[in-house]
Amino acid sequence: MLLNTRTQTTPTQPSRLDRSTFVDTVSHRPGSVILYPGKSDMLYRVASGLVRVHTMDDDGNGLTLRYVKPGDYFGEEALAGLDRQYFAEAVTDSSVDVINPALMSAEDNLVVTTHLVKTLERAYESIYRLVGKRLRARIAGELLELKDTALATVQPSGETMIYATHDELAAAVGSVRETVTKVVGELSREGVISAGYGKITLKDEAALARISAE
Amino acid sequence: MLLNTRTQTTPTQPSRLDRSTFVDTVSHRPGSVILYPGKSDMLYRVASGLVRVHTMDDDGNGLTLRYVKPGDYFGEEALAGLDRQYFAEAVTDSSVDVINPALMSAEDNLVVTTHLVKTLERAYESIYRLVGKRLRARIAGELLELKDTALATVQPSGETMIYATHDELAAAVGSVRETVTKVVGELSREGVISAGYGKITLKDEAALARISAE
Repeated sequence: MLLNTRTQTTPTQPSRLDRSTFVDTVSHRPGSVILYPGKSDMLYRVASGLVRVHTMDDDGNGLTLRYVKPGDYFGEEALAGLDRQYFAEAVTDSSVDVINPALMSAEDNLVVTTHLVKTLERAYESIYRLVGKRLRARIAGELLELKDTALATVQPSGETMIYATHDELAAAVGSVRETVTKVVGELSREGVISAGYGKITLKDEAALARISAE
Repeated sequence: MLLNTRTQTTPTQPSRLDRSTFVDTVSHRPGSVILYPGKSDMLYRVASGLVRVHTMDDDGNGLTLRYVKPGDYFGEEALAGLDRQYFAEAVTDSSVDVINPALMSAEDNLVVTTHLVKTLERAYESIYRLVGKRLRARIAGELLELKDTALATVQPSGETMIYATHDELAAAVGSVRETVTKVVGELSREGVISAGYGKITLKDEAALARISAE
């Protein structure tokens, strides 16, 4: 286990899992790598913040496999005794519960199984969108996906602003920055979003939902 | 649960899951739809044959999410009480164990959890290949993936022949028939495979492995 960014230990939060299975709760700063590919031993649950699970291609381009929101798990390969194939990184200030799988009860296992089934369903949705949807629809969908995460803040106007660079969006939708920039420009000109440096404001969420389904 | 193609009940096979959890073992003919999207209640394990888990886009184009080989499970959404989002279809003559999740022991759950973790890992590999690999590499990888399934037979020459149409390959790699036909033609001209009507013979598996990693 690599916890190179352990900066602080905080009391565990109330949880659906039995408290006796917790090893620790660890805080991570934005951009900190929480897990590297390699041997696995612990299961992790996001208590607060946002964690990005990602891999890299041969050229070093990042590919986001999923965002892990509070209440959701990562490090599930420890349950199967498999090596980890991905990186996990704190996107915002994040607090992460570290759980020892060997101490999990049957009820704990059921909670985690349910999480795994949902995560698999989301992975299949990603495959479906990658194959069947245009980049424009995938970007619209991704912005709506990020709307209820720690990357988003509601503005005084009532509009949601999301902190995300074009690089981060590209990694999340399986594209490259240049192409994302082009689509973000289109959506801005249409008035669906407004884009600033490293942030995107959702101006018309109903239109985004329509575009994401195109 | 929809089991519209139930044709025969056979004794259960020896298994890593406690036999008392089995409801039934059901045989399916090639092309039979075993499960439709909708309510879920049972977990399924392939005893013999090959099952394809797939979805469809708005235009009715199939997209294969995974092939389920003997010993592997499908219908995992029943464990989480979620609706099924996909179809499951027998590719070859297949025998499928039907398992009642409510009767599963803690040990059973661990077996299924391990399966889920591996299935999620494979889904992420699919995403990685869809984003990062050319169609040529994805087709080569898919042929190697099908090599140890019920679709493959070893010829007297020692070469493996795989029963798969260009449509089926296209659904498995997220492309369309016309483009797959073009790539299959290329690989044939290079002597890596030979293609006949609805079947492909692997002539040079080492070359296929190299191409799949390109």
